[in-house]
Amino acid sequence: MEKRVYNFSAGPAALPLAALEEAQRNLLVLPGAGASVMEISHRSKPFGEILETAKSNIAQLLKLPPSYKVLFIQGGASLQFSMVPMNLLRGSEEAADYIITGSWGKKALKEAQKEGKTRVAWDGKEEHYKRTPLQSELSLNAKAPYCHITSNETIEGVEFQSFPDTGGAPLVCDASSDFLSQPIPIEPFGIIYAGAQKNVGPSGVAVVIIREDLLERAPQGLPTMLDYRVVAENDSLYNTPPCFGIYVIMLVTNWLLHTIGGLDKMADVNRKKAKMLYDVIDASEGFYRGHAARECRSIMNVTWRLPNEDLEAAFVKEAKSCGLDALKGHRSVGGIRASIYNAMTVEGVQALCDFMAAFKAKQG
Amino acid sequence: MEKRVYNFSAGPAALPLAALEEAQRNLLVLPGAGASVMEISHRSKPFGEILETAKSNIAQLLKLPPSYKVLFIQGGASLQFSMVPMNLLRGSEEAADYIITGSWGKKALKEAQKEGKTRVAWDGKEEHYKRTPLQSELSLNAKAPYCHITSNETIEGVEFQSFPDTGGAPLVCDASSDFLSQPIPIEPFGIIYAGAQKNVGPSGVAVVIIREDLLERAPQGLPTMLDYRVVAENDSLYNTPPCFGIYVIMLVTNWLLHTIGGLDKMADVNRKKAKMLYDVIDASEGFYRGHAARECRSIMNVTWRLPNEDLEAAFVKEAKSCGLDALKGHRSVGGIRASIYNAMTVEGVQALCDFMAAFKAKQG
Repeated sequence: MEKRVYNFSAGPAALPLAALEEAQRNLLVLPGAGASVMEISHRSKPFGEILETAKSNIAQLLKLPPSYKVLFIQGGASLQFSMVPMNLLRGSEEAADYIITGSWGKKALKEAQKEGKTRVAWDGKEEHYKRTPLQSELSLNAKAPYCHITSNETIEGVEFQSFPDTGGAPLVCDASSDFLSQPIPIEPFGIIYAGAQKNVGPSGVAVVIIREDLLERAPQGLPTMLDYRVVAENDSLYNTPPCFGIYVIMLVTNWLLHTIGGLDKMADVNRKKAKMLYDVIDASEGFYRGHAARECRSIMNVTWRLPNEDLEAAFVKEAKSCGLDALKGHRSVGGIRASIYNAMTVEGVQALCDFMAAFKAKQG
Repeated sequence: MEKRVYNFSAGPAALPLAALEEAQRNLLVLPGAGASVMEISHRSKPFGEILETAKSNIAQLLKLPPSYKVLFIQGGASLQFSMVPMNLLRGSEEAADYIITGSWGKKALKEAQKEGKTRVAWDGKEEHYKRTPLQSELSLNAKAPYCHITSNETIEGVEFQSFPDTGGAPLVCDASSDFLSQPIPIEPFGIIYAGAQKNVGPSGVAVVIIREDLLERAPQGLPTMLDYRVVAENDSLYNTPPCFGIYVIMLVTNWLLHTIGGLDKMADVNRKKAKMLYDVIDASEGFYRGHAARECRSIMNVTWRLPNEDLEAAFVKEAKSCGLDALKGHRSVGGIRASIYNAMTVEGVQALCDFMAAFKAKQG
């Protein structure tokens, strides 16, 4: 078998090796099913157990109160940009508040504007999306149908360290790139949604956690497939769900729960990995320049620049030849981005730190 | 490894063993990628090649003229029930024609009614969905935005043997359960869509084949993720697509094209398998009673009843104990259903025929 690289891809992204190995072992026959997990009915007993375990793992990891439902929906976070306002905003007199801390927040806002009234409560654009807002900069509408945030902006590498106080409006959070990376307080959230392909599984499925009372808000006449009530009432089985994706989510959350030991332990590892990289950046005397303001630095996506674009291209190319892959920043912002989700090992990050030191030494 | 059963599941359904074996072999490292196909960027070169091959295989198999685009969309055929009328019907003065030959056509109609004007051009309900209409029974509107059919009704086992002449309105076809099972004339079709999980891959991705000129019909202001133009302009990469599903579609269509030898060859095998089962039914002196009218019998889903429900339950249970799995009819209609998609082997069908003969002999 070809060697596996250290994979810093922003998504689809590295998965825990143990989860991949189990998926591989059982790809032709899921134990007890006589067929691949891709070949069995979504209403069969073996798949029912997979679905239950995936849901219950997520609920345990996040310590969800029973008033929250865990749903699996196709279309990624991008479809949630529309489903959230279709279900919660259509017909509302009050505008939804949107806090824009980067590229994905902007996209979420654009879709919401098609469905109802919105208000931009804060926008970091003028500061080039380097930080999240202070509570003192926000005047949020407590009666808003919801207040939307992006807990971690994947492209800019900017992450909320604590969540805005809305005065009562439910927070709706796109958590695609830091979902299950650390414990969070659940109470302020009405909806947490996340495309699976960064921290919890393959692309093609979004996890949507929704507070039960919000299910009542959906207007009549929505397309059946876009109605949270239908998804919840049918336990994500109104139509055939992305079975293989849900299976891999089960394997990854099994690993998080039983091998890693939960989100406190995972957060310790994630903070350690992020600190290793930020320490190299901070000690580089300006050779590596981090994008995010220090107090808003992401523990999942570490973004930085080099003195010029030629050096950045050389950095990405040489890193790749050393088995450190997918370090190029997003095409919209350039620079370097190391995505160090849950499955990235400390060894992988150490290898990148060593490479960064050597690259600087050679150029300096 | 546990033994693989003969899997007659209606979907998710049996996949070609060769495709599963290749997916298994490469699950940890896709050759040339240094990581699993689940872990690499959808904008990487290795995934780009997978996407191109999957599209081009489908185009070759169906002999698509260049005016047709092959798209991959999440949400299954059920989301297409809404996307079709959102894109082609909203704002139209003329009603769309719907021909209802079973359960899935009814669901498609229900979603279309939310989006615009519809007309039921024919409905087989009174005859318990045993057949498709004759051309002489139809008066279709040539100016309709489209005429919707379900080429094969999975639950009832009723399949169009030739397609209605609409006089010019584009046919829109839910081909989920007979996609790529035999050659079809492309010209009358504006859109052919199919959930992958029956004949071409795992659940979580629908293949949508659309005639280019129809892309212009979409109204402004659609949710970005539900706009065919956006999918087409971005070559199914507007957001992260279901990469693993598309990879398996590539493997399955590779097998269809290069191992089986194309749709003519596949159709020969499929007709042979279906005939084997219908012959047993027809020779059973009424012990096995087929549901579909003879001239509309499906070559993918063979449905029949036994003298009573107790015998049906015994049949399903004993078959399972003989390694013939998932033969229970859909919960909405009861009876027995053997789904014999492309990946079901002649050996598997022979084993079922033998079991049917033995079961009848024991009861008779």
